[in-house]
Amino acid sequence: MSVNWRDDLPWLPVAGVRLASAAAGIRYRGRDDLVLMAFDPDTTVAGVFTRNAFCAAPVHLARRHLRTEGVRAFLINAGNANAGTGHSGMQVAEQSCQLAADHLGCRPEQILPFSTGVIGEQMPIKPFDRSLPQLVKQLEESQWGRASRAIMTTDTQPKLRSRQFRLADGRECVLTGMSKGAGMIKPDMATMLAFIATDAPVAKADLQSFLASAVNVSFNAITVDGDTSTNDACVIAATGMAGGDPICPQSSQGDIFAAELTALLQELAKGIVRDAEGATRFIEVCVEGATDLAEARKVAYTVAESPLVKTAAFAGDPNWGRILAAVGRSGIAALDVDSVSLWLDKVCLVQNGQPHPEYTEASGATVAGQAEFQIRISLGRGDISTRVWTCDYSYDYVKINAEYRS
Amino acid sequence: MSVNWRDDLPWLPVAGVRLASAAAGIRYRGRDDLVLMAFDPDTTVAGVFTRNAFCAAPVHLARRHLRTEGVRAFLINAGNANAGTGHSGMQVAEQSCQLAADHLGCRPEQILPFSTGVIGEQMPIKPFDRSLPQLVKQLEESQWGRASRAIMTTDTQPKLRSRQFRLADGRECVLTGMSKGAGMIKPDMATMLAFIATDAPVAKADLQSFLASAVNVSFNAITVDGDTSTNDACVIAATGMAGGDPICPQSSQGDIFAAELTALLQELAKGIVRDAEGATRFIEVCVEGATDLAEARKVAYTVAESPLVKTAAFAGDPNWGRILAAVGRSGIAALDVDSVSLWLDKVCLVQNGQPHPEYTEASGATVAGQAEFQIRISLGRGDISTRVWTCDYSYDYVKINAEYRS
Repeated sequence: MSVNWRDDLPWLPVAGVRLASAAAGIRYRGRDDLVLMAFDPDTTVAGVFTRNAFCAAPVHLARRHLRTEGVRAFLINAGNANAGTGHSGMQVAEQSCQLAADHLGCRPEQILPFSTGVIGEQMPIKPFDRSLPQLVKQLEESQWGRASRAIMTTDTQPKLRSRQFRLADGRECVLTGMSKGAGMIKPDMATMLAFIATDAPVAKADLQSFLASAVNVSFNAITVDGDTSTNDACVIAATGMAGGDPICPQSSQGDIFAAELTALLQELAKGIVRDAEGATRFIEVCVEGATDLAEARKVAYTVAESPLVKTAAFAGDPNWGRILAAVGRSGIAALDVDSVSLWLDKVCLVQNGQPHPEYTEASGATVAGQAEFQIRISLGRGDISTRVWTCDYSYDYVKINAEYRS
Repeated sequence: MSVNWRDDLPWLPVAGVRLASAAAGIRYRGRDDLVLMAFDPDTTVAGVFTRNAFCAAPVHLARRHLRTEGVRAFLINAGNANAGTGHSGMQVAEQSCQLAADHLGCRPEQILPFSTGVIGEQMPIKPFDRSLPQLVKQLEESQWGRASRAIMTTDTQPKLRSRQFRLADGRECVLTGMSKGAGMIKPDMATMLAFIATDAPVAKADLQSFLASAVNVSFNAITVDGDTSTNDACVIAATGMAGGDPICPQSSQGDIFAAELTALLQELAKGIVRDAEGATRFIEVCVEGATDLAEARKVAYTVAESPLVKTAAFAGDPNWGRILAAVGRSGIAALDVDSVSLWLDKVCLVQNGQPHPEYTEASGATVAGQAEFQIRISLGRGDISTRVWTCDYSYDYVKINAEYRS
């Protein structure tokens, strides 16, 4: 089940990016769970990672390896997060990079490892040892679709999207990305996991800055349950195969690239919320009239993560009292409740702190009964706004998270 | 359903405190939903209230009336929170105090109003008008039991407890209190709602200080869903009928009174968690080795409110990866994960950031399968500790909150 997410849309391969997937048996039986994503030489790579202090061994290692030049591949497994696994977990992550490097003919520092799945279980090295020879042989540009399914855990649908765009000088470029994640979703720098590639040429430092900006308004603006993962990562590879001069920020080419990257990341980030554990509704929380961004985000996240707002949304109940209660407890200084207004889509429920005289329960219920709607809150004290995307809490959220592991 | 809460224990009336309940028909049919709790002259009263900016009309009014001397009664209704009701909600709250004052022969400022129930519905004055004459006539010291049931909303059991104690000079005193609340529970100063009375003599300012201290380690240390109510209030009345000199803080009498009050409030606060919406387990989260209390509370609440920790608890799953992930995202500065240790009751799962070598899944599952257990986290960087009480997230939490209102 997911909320308005189509997994049958066309996508485009990226020149210089080859992928392969295998059923390595890390946790699942009868499905792919290991992906190798390899890049041509001269590809630049940038990444952002979870700020959870208990981050997984592969996150530590990927962050370290990203500092070296010439990344040649991502090695991604689903089923085991390799988090909370201590020294032996780090050893396995290092060994897996060494194995991939041996087969690809490069140094282990040129491999970035990524894991997703259960936290706190030791990761075996054997599945990597067994599957890597075959993965290296099967690398093809056409394998994004299979790879996007291989990285799923509690996701019900793969999340793969492409954008094709023309730069100011006429160059045609492609951006393709895949993401996964359905629970433990409140990314803090990035989310669990997104892999983006482009054939546009971008220098490493610039790629990092393009990525960080786009992540801030996409993966860093979604929440399912407020639980920041130990394994979050969003990485991008730019192969440069489209040719021409590198794209720089603050240029006409850079503006186009930034807009396209942001649009792709927002679509993939929303895809995670649409396919969130047990989600039956997709909700945009928009906070306006704040004095600064920190305040706007605090209110938006408090509303988006309130279990009472989320269970009311599940019921299709326009329970604005719970929304106001969440705004009121969000901890922003000297909030004047008589300046606060609230809308569900275009229906105004509360105007300047008072129930709107023309509001009817029926008009609110019509909006809240939709599969997608917007909660818009104006604080009436400034001109900063922000948006956060979230979903409802259903029986299935509890079911999925009570049963996962068992 | 509740977790180990007995509602058949004996309780004691408090000299100088008389109560009456009525079925006023504010929301429910065929049950009491209005309580009048009246005090003899010279009773001192203290209270703490929600810090939610969207607090209810009666909270505003009770806070204001508390500043005047000589409170004579509490007027409490269940079913309608009178929150988010604008100017007309405030008018009804003022009128209800006026009506009670008329019948009791005092000023409206001597009445403290309290409401609990649905947010955002207009409160009618008629039920107060109709029921108050009868309530005033029926006031009796013996009516705590009936009153504790009349203030319930989604509670499944009344929460009423007494303590009898002897001061250093031999005086016998009684402390009796009742609380209600099962959802929208993350008190911030107090919780929704607790009414305490004692026959001990305590001056108003001292009573406020005794109450604030006890609330900090009781009602301000529980969370069900992290949603701070708009109507939280905890108030205490000291009738002085036990006689003798007033009890002062920092005296041998004061120490005894503070300890008894804290014990009573902790029992009532835990009672709210035991009877929380859908709760099947009662969990104490203990954080040790913190550098300060703010840090300890941040970690304790992040763990206690993590939907993933709570759904794992529902399943009886000792999912320590989710606990560590919550510790890791709690936002405390420069956390060294290699200093963190974790226990479920006496079973050590993680020692200095590494999986404990002797830990077995079976030993963890035995603890997590109990109706009550402790999650103990040592941060290993200081000597401050704190405790927070919470419960699991079950299907019934979603069911209750999706269906409430409908």
